[in-house]
Amino acid sequence: MERTLERIPPKSADLSEWYQAACYQAELVSQAPVRGCLVLRPYGYGLWERLQAELDRRFKETGHENAYFPLLIPESLLTREAEHVEGFAPEVAWVTEGGSEKLTERLAIRPTSEVIIGVMYAEWIQSYRDLPVLINQWANVMRWEKRTRPFLRTAEFLWQEGHTAHATEQEAAEEVARMLEVYREVAEDVCAVPVYKGEKSSSERFAGANHTYSIEALMPDGRALQSATSHELGQNFARAYDITFAAEDQTQQHAWTTSWGMSWRMLGALIMTHGDDRGLRIPPRMAPVEVVIVPIPRGDTTALDAAAKSLHEQCKAAGLRVRLDDRPGQSPGYKFNEWDMRGVPIRLELGNRDLEAGVVTLVRRDKAVKEDGQKQQVPLNEIVAFIPTMLEQIQHNLFAQAKTFLQDHTIATLDRDEFIRLLKERAGMIDVPWCGDPACEVAVKDATGATTRNLRQPARAERCVPCGEPARYQAYFAQSY
Amino acid sequence: MERTLERIPPKSADLSEWYQAACYQAELVSQAPVRGCLVLRPYGYGLWERLQAELDRRFKETGHENAYFPLLIPESLLTREAEHVEGFAPEVAWVTEGGSEKLTERLAIRPTSEVIIGVMYAEWIQSYRDLPVLINQWANVMRWEKRTRPFLRTAEFLWQEGHTAHATEQEAAEEVARMLEVYREVAEDVCAVPVYKGEKSSSERFAGANHTYSIEALMPDGRALQSATSHELGQNFARAYDITFAAEDQTQQHAWTTSWGMSWRMLGALIMTHGDDRGLRIPPRMAPVEVVIVPIPRGDTTALDAAAKSLHEQCKAAGLRVRLDDRPGQSPGYKFNEWDMRGVPIRLELGNRDLEAGVVTLVRRDKAVKEDGQKQQVPLNEIVAFIPTMLEQIQHNLFAQAKTFLQDHTIATLDRDEFIRLLKERAGMIDVPWCGDPACEVAVKDATGATTRNLRQPARAERCVPCGEPARYQAYFAQSY
Repeated sequence: MERTLERIPPKSADLSEWYQAACYQAELVSQAPVRGCLVLRPYGYGLWERLQAELDRRFKETGHENAYFPLLIPESLLTREAEHVEGFAPEVAWVTEGGSEKLTERLAIRPTSEVIIGVMYAEWIQSYRDLPVLINQWANVMRWEKRTRPFLRTAEFLWQEGHTAHATEQEAAEEVARMLEVYREVAEDVCAVPVYKGEKSSSERFAGANHTYSIEALMPDGRALQSATSHELGQNFARAYDITFAAEDQTQQHAWTTSWGMSWRMLGALIMTHGDDRGLRIPPRMAPVEVVIVPIPRGDTTALDAAAKSLHEQCKAAGLRVRLDDRPGQSPGYKFNEWDMRGVPIRLELGNRDLEAGVVTLVRRDKAVKEDGQKQQVPLNEIVAFIPTMLEQIQHNLFAQAKTFLQDHTIATLDRDEFIRLLKERAGMIDVPWCGDPACEVAVKDATGATTRNLRQPARAERCVPCGEPARYQAYFAQSY
Repeated sequence: MERTLERIPPKSADLSEWYQAACYQAELVSQAPVRGCLVLRPYGYGLWERLQAELDRRFKETGHENAYFPLLIPESLLTREAEHVEGFAPEVAWVTEGGSEKLTERLAIRPTSEVIIGVMYAEWIQSYRDLPVLINQWANVMRWEKRTRPFLRTAEFLWQEGHTAHATEQEAAEEVARMLEVYREVAEDVCAVPVYKGEKSSSERFAGANHTYSIEALMPDGRALQSATSHELGQNFARAYDITFAAEDQTQQHAWTTSWGMSWRMLGALIMTHGDDRGLRIPPRMAPVEVVIVPIPRGDTTALDAAAKSLHEQCKAAGLRVRLDDRPGQSPGYKFNEWDMRGVPIRLELGNRDLEAGVVTLVRRDKAVKEDGQKQQVPLNEIVAFIPTMLEQIQHNLFAQAKTFLQDHTIATLDRDEFIRLLKERAGMIDVPWCGDPACEVAVKDATGATTRNLRQPARAERCVPCGEPARYQAYFAQSY
């Protein structure tokens, strides 16, 4: 009757194959009978809930409130901001029938909500006293896609989108920087995924924005993953949707708006960054289950069952996210492998011999099998107090490993041939002075498949490495997801 | 420069007019430029977040996990359960185009998710060991509507939908009863809205269910409001979507499934139940803002500003949901009226004279103006400790008022003429022995506009009051929303 665990292909051999297998076998997601769509299963939703909680708390601490705007956007509204509609129209799903009637106007399922929110802000904002407006929305959005890759590419996805309106350009710029920093913090300090902050090049900018900023992570295959963006929309949407206010000096002005978003894509970055050949490794702060207790029954299990239950209760009382795996019919070995595959940071093994000795065996998921410190025995009466410290160690160790990888694969060069070779080899984030010219970026892309990930100023040398023109930025180039 | 507050029409004169005005002026919602849709503004979303938190905690305590299923359902899947599709097809919004291509099959925006979840359960459930499956989803759903009434009738709405699968009919029945009780508890103990639990008549049953149970509240205009439902789906969906499992005895069996949902409609019940001529009255456990501090500046405000800020910080530190309204340019009187209108349970007024006397004036929103106990002075050094007690009093007082109203408007009768008259007068919940025959219910509806709200057993007399046939149930009849 015992089930066997399907093997996941090794991560190093083919990241993409490993990734898909890990996502499905860890029961994060299932394929849905709807083109381009996935089901987020309870364990995957547990990750999403952790991300939501961490983001939502920070949004509120920075003065934002949540609201909810309609899913459907009439086509006539969508088309008012020219660049925006051009950017999104090709990927919109359209509702054309309601009940039994044909609609007179097509309704777009939101690919993002600048438009519908802009229309409402125009109504709500009258005076400088109404500003700033600081709103976030948790929502599903849809961008028509043929391919699906869990978390990274799906027609429907879950995200949050912040939308704010300000009296001045400077305030808007400060907001955009503030939220980018929130994203960096959540990526690095919560998801343990190190990132680079910077501005996107003009060709990679959000449709309708003046400036787009991003955080970019580096995956084990040397490809960058954009993990969140924050946009200065200038007065573009305010002009298109008529968001004006009476300023203190009585003049009528257009508001300065921003938007910023992080989606469940961040979970894809986390999974690829930390996983190993045995499956997921989830950073404790993101783990739906931080600790799993696996009893090892032999002979009379009365005392063992009671001890396991007591340990479970103690962990719960201490506020830990803990699971007791006392399923009958599955061997401890199967359970070890399954929870390893699902990435639970700490496993506690409890057998009769442990119990007699008054100890429990703690196994760290962040360490390799038989690596120093992977297993240790901890007195039963000290374990609950010990776990939080160990979780912090695991959190920091996972971040340190990922940070080392990022640093080892961030390569600065002033040599054009090396630059091209590194990009072709997908060696990582290639850090070069750059001119900022879209034509130069296209030439690099044609030669290597890589683009700028993001930019910062000033450039560290006078000449653009790809083309030799004067450099304006220091840019990370990489192939990307 | 001071704004004036628009007056809300009196509640007693026209509940519907009062309701709409209160919802819009308290900034719970805005009309959206999309047919049948509303924007849930931050204050309204604050109510929704409170409801979510209270429900979500109880779902998890009863063993449920959250997940997320696709928004779109292919038409061919939707039509597999005959009764279900018949019930929902007339109100479905259809996606027929994606990007620039016409789809080969229409996709329904989910009106509810039994179908897509049933398909997934068929895949996930193999053995009795996989049961029960206990999943909840927080989601937007769409049912094509022409009219909009905030929270009560909108094309798109927010809700939660629980979907579970069990090995036996009895387990499924227990689940349905358990979740109905959770809804009763949240309605009564959190929203302070008293309700009747019972089973729906066959004509009011969910499309595809064997048994539907509901909680029903009574609005001030004598109309009932169905506030949540819980369904025994029997093996209907399991048959239609092939949810089978290998039982312990090795036989292959169909699972027994349930579903249960509460939507933002519950907020409509709360608003109508508790509001008064001055606007909303929000029960403290649901209040996005429990306490508002309004300083009354006169002359030098240095000490007053500091005291108000300090009080604000103390309240926050005590875990209260508190707002300090120190907006310049608006008079205290305006602020009092505005926060009254928005239903904040406790207002703290702080003036120089209060400050000198070391007191603060506490004003309860649940009491009428100048009613005994509406205002009281509390020593500043005791106020923070005093507030939780006062919030509890307000919570219980609002519930007691609503409970008295429900009891006063629940009328048992055995006289057919009186029964018909009471229903025509919209006198409340009319409680009569009933036969259970759909034809009898139709006759009552034709005569009065009323239907059964829900049923319980046994009947309290031998004969059905409407038709004289043998009675099987004791039924609440009422006109309804």
